[in-house]
Amino acid sequence: MSRILRTPAEFTAEDHKIALRIAESALTVDGVERLTDIRAWFTARASLDIARVNRIPFAEMDRWGTDPRTGDLRHDSGRFFSIEGLAVEVPQGPVPRWTQPIVNQPEIGILGFLVQEFNGVLHFLVQAKNEPGNATGVQLSPTVQATRSNYTGVHGGAKVPYLGYFRDPDRHRIIADVLQSEQGSWFYQKRNRNIVIEVDEEIPLLDGFRWLTLGQLHRFLAEDDVVNMDARTVLSCLPFSAEDLTGALPSAGEGLPAAVLRSASPEQGARHTTAEILRWVTDARTSNEVRTRRMPLRDIDGWTRTADAIEHDDRLFFRVIAVRVETGHREVTGWTQPMIEPIGVGVIAFVVTRFDGVLHALVQARVEPGYLDVVELAPTAQWTPSNYTRLPAAAAPRFAGEILTARPEQVLFEATLSEEGGRFHRALNRYTIIELDPARGAALDTGPAHRWLALHQLVDLLRHSHYVNVQGRSLVACLHTLSGARDRP
Amino acid sequence: MSRILRTPAEFTAEDHKIALRIAESALTVDGVERLTDIRAWFTARASLDIARVNRIPFAEMDRWGTDPRTGDLRHDSGRFFSIEGLAVEVPQGPVPRWTQPIVNQPEIGILGFLVQEFNGVLHFLVQAKNEPGNATGVQLSPTVQATRSNYTGVHGGAKVPYLGYFRDPDRHRIIADVLQSEQGSWFYQKRNRNIVIEVDEEIPLLDGFRWLTLGQLHRFLAEDDVVNMDARTVLSCLPFSAEDLTGALPSAGEGLPAAVLRSASPEQGARHTTAEILRWVTDARTSNEVRTRRMPLRDIDGWTRTADAIEHDDRLFFRVIAVRVETGHREVTGWTQPMIEPIGVGVIAFVVTRFDGVLHALVQARVEPGYLDVVELAPTAQWTPSNYTRLPAAAAPRFAGEILTARPEQVLFEATLSEEGGRFHRALNRYTIIELDPARGAALDTGPAHRWLALHQLVDLLRHSHYVNVQGRSLVACLHTLSGARDRP
Repeated sequence: MSRILRTPAEFTAEDHKIALRIAESALTVDGVERLTDIRAWFTARASLDIARVNRIPFAEMDRWGTDPRTGDLRHDSGRFFSIEGLAVEVPQGPVPRWTQPIVNQPEIGILGFLVQEFNGVLHFLVQAKNEPGNATGVQLSPTVQATRSNYTGVHGGAKVPYLGYFRDPDRHRIIADVLQSEQGSWFYQKRNRNIVIEVDEEIPLLDGFRWLTLGQLHRFLAEDDVVNMDARTVLSCLPFSAEDLTGALPSAGEGLPAAVLRSASPEQGARHTTAEILRWVTDARTSNEVRTRRMPLRDIDGWTRTADAIEHDDRLFFRVIAVRVETGHREVTGWTQPMIEPIGVGVIAFVVTRFDGVLHALVQARVEPGYLDVVELAPTAQWTPSNYTRLPAAAAPRFAGEILTARPEQVLFEATLSEEGGRFHRALNRYTIIELDPARGAALDTGPAHRWLALHQLVDLLRHSHYVNVQGRSLVACLHTLSGARDRP
Repeated sequence: MSRILRTPAEFTAEDHKIALRIAESALTVDGVERLTDIRAWFTARASLDIARVNRIPFAEMDRWGTDPRTGDLRHDSGRFFSIEGLAVEVPQGPVPRWTQPIVNQPEIGILGFLVQEFNGVLHFLVQAKNEPGNATGVQLSPTVQATRSNYTGVHGGAKVPYLGYFRDPDRHRIIADVLQSEQGSWFYQKRNRNIVIEVDEEIPLLDGFRWLTLGQLHRFLAEDDVVNMDARTVLSCLPFSAEDLTGALPSAGEGLPAAVLRSASPEQGARHTTAEILRWVTDARTSNEVRTRRMPLRDIDGWTRTADAIEHDDRLFFRVIAVRVETGHREVTGWTQPMIEPIGVGVIAFVVTRFDGVLHALVQARVEPGYLDVVELAPTAQWTPSNYTRLPAAAAPRFAGEILTARPEQVLFEATLSEEGGRFHRALNRYTIIELDPARGAALDTGPAHRWLALHQLVDLLRHSHYVNVQGRSLVACLHTLSGARDRP
């Protein structure tokens, strides 16, 4: 393939080579298995791997209990996670102080894909995995999702398959390896290690796993609720060079998706230099004063605990519940646990436009109390409309209008996807990417909390922690589906 | 000037231009004022601006008191900072758990230099400033050192001069702007905004301030205890291109300092690619499990509180004291406050070498309990020898031998510098840079906690938070003094 690479500024020759191979994989819809065969396998797994999930009172949980001193929900091993209280002060915010339940899981987990080359094309080892919070059962997941409790065996169950490859990653070729945050409204400073390793030695293919090309993963990602959150966040950290895809596309220059993904060096088309973006982030982290304090769950205000739920008094935001899970397809065959159940379906949207042909996403510097570093870069808007029904229209998030009133031809991407099903029960969001024409984009008053970032700048920032939040990372993964092999057989 | 720029990978054309101007300033020893005149001014300020600092019992502090519930030391406004307790668990560390006093100052302060061009050369607006903890009185300091309490007027004193320029930095040219951490053994998650702004409009020169070139600052930085910590950390964040200096040096290729500072792109001479360094950081942050919990100061173990000190039972590490400060040269003319007084003089050292002519520093991935993100990149070794006198020789930090037994010709830099005198009383460290010959450097078993980083890679990482600790930043600033105009009149 002869292509002119225009890739993120930090890329080295080795990165270029990997970016090219990633592009190749994204362009491949039939890999070692055809897309139709993968779909048949997935359907079969979905009918086989069924979990029964029933809500139970907190008191009926096994090995989970209520701390008599604090009211926190804890596992009797002291591991996994706990549900505690958090006091938040944001003096300059619209709501200057509140208290809420929060999931505290200080351990850093691993979300990892093994990749391997077959017939010259990179394939990703994907697991069809059911989690108790999933609305539709089985989802396509990374090779490994493991908490430290998992891999130190605290749960007393079977070993996590393929975990050994990630214990000593330096033996293999590391394609991505970075700590990234999770939902800052629900998790207290939670991070996971997002890691992709290329292994040359033969890897046994276990039950429930298949090798997929990135092109196949992208097809499924465009469908409702098939690719899970953990897979999306890891995919977003790939050293992706959108330019590679565009150059190779048969329809390059023709259709929308191909053209909008043209990448560029920071000087050749990004609206702001990366230095300017970093200064803006520094300013947002300084001007937004956020103070959090962990507190006993029983002492939070505005929330009421019953036998089977902890709910906000206005029935907004989310509730804490307990569930019993019964399944034959997991490390342990049945268990109970607390979960977070969001109320209402959220909207998570990037507004994008092309400046001089270079795709830019309108990114928000967003405060969430669980972030380790005050602010992360978020989608243009992320909100749950039902939380706003009692508020005046002016309270709606900025750019909600552009997003909710987009004409069909402006919608580049739309799918209902779920957040992590191990902690969140039926946490569904409508992920969408709305394109404005360049004149409208240029005329938009972005205000101090939003900036236009070129896609390659987001890819650059994703090499580091603390920059792009988990919802933004999902949308970056969705943006990558727009290039590549969408229209090929 | 005709030079071939080989600068950090992320640099844009605008960055290159600024790097060139920074290099120009570093090469200039006589600016709008001659070095000798600056020295005379500094000596005069030192004899004029004298603070009397006396230790007092905790009970004699004004507006500072002991929280009756926790034993914490707090200001009655609730602002400034407090001294609290911290429980630390590092299960894999040599000491798996301990408790200690810690300074909690959640506000993000500003450390800022104003710069302006005179006769075509950038000058830095430097303040001769006395802080109560300084051993020698007045030090060269940034234009502005302000806590949020300072600039919101909680202290009830005079306004901080020049602060207005930093309140709306976008009006001016921002040369650096990044949040950086402070001492993770003494501060709980403290950060400051390190910022350098170029202002074109005329700036009034107030009493106690002078315009210095970077070359002049570098001269003073090589002397004992003249340039304060806040100035050093801000200078380390400049988008420095060492190559510029080397190329312009009259003695280029001859002497040691010029040759060692040759920069390179990440592929042309760095021992590890930046991607590899980032993966190593991710691995260090995952494998080092660190849990901290703030706790009442009165409940910490192994420390004893008397009327005028909180001391470790072995008289190691540091003590918490109270002082009364009397001065006519500050926002308020007298005050009392608690301070941290380290016990013993520390050694803070970079071991460096040249691989293919490119200067590399041996950097440690170091855990300190006050870091926001587990690990930061630290000097090759930083330790206080007197804390180790009771321990077997094997307990000494790695590479202490190379550092303490270096021959004079290996010592590229050596100066006793102090840490921030507003919080730390007589906190002196011997900063040193030791060069190994390339063969010895290449043969060194660095172990998992150390890696060789090229200087330009450190400059790149300093655009982001959470990477280089404050001691490492001081040494980066010291490294920059090795190039430039050292040997010119």
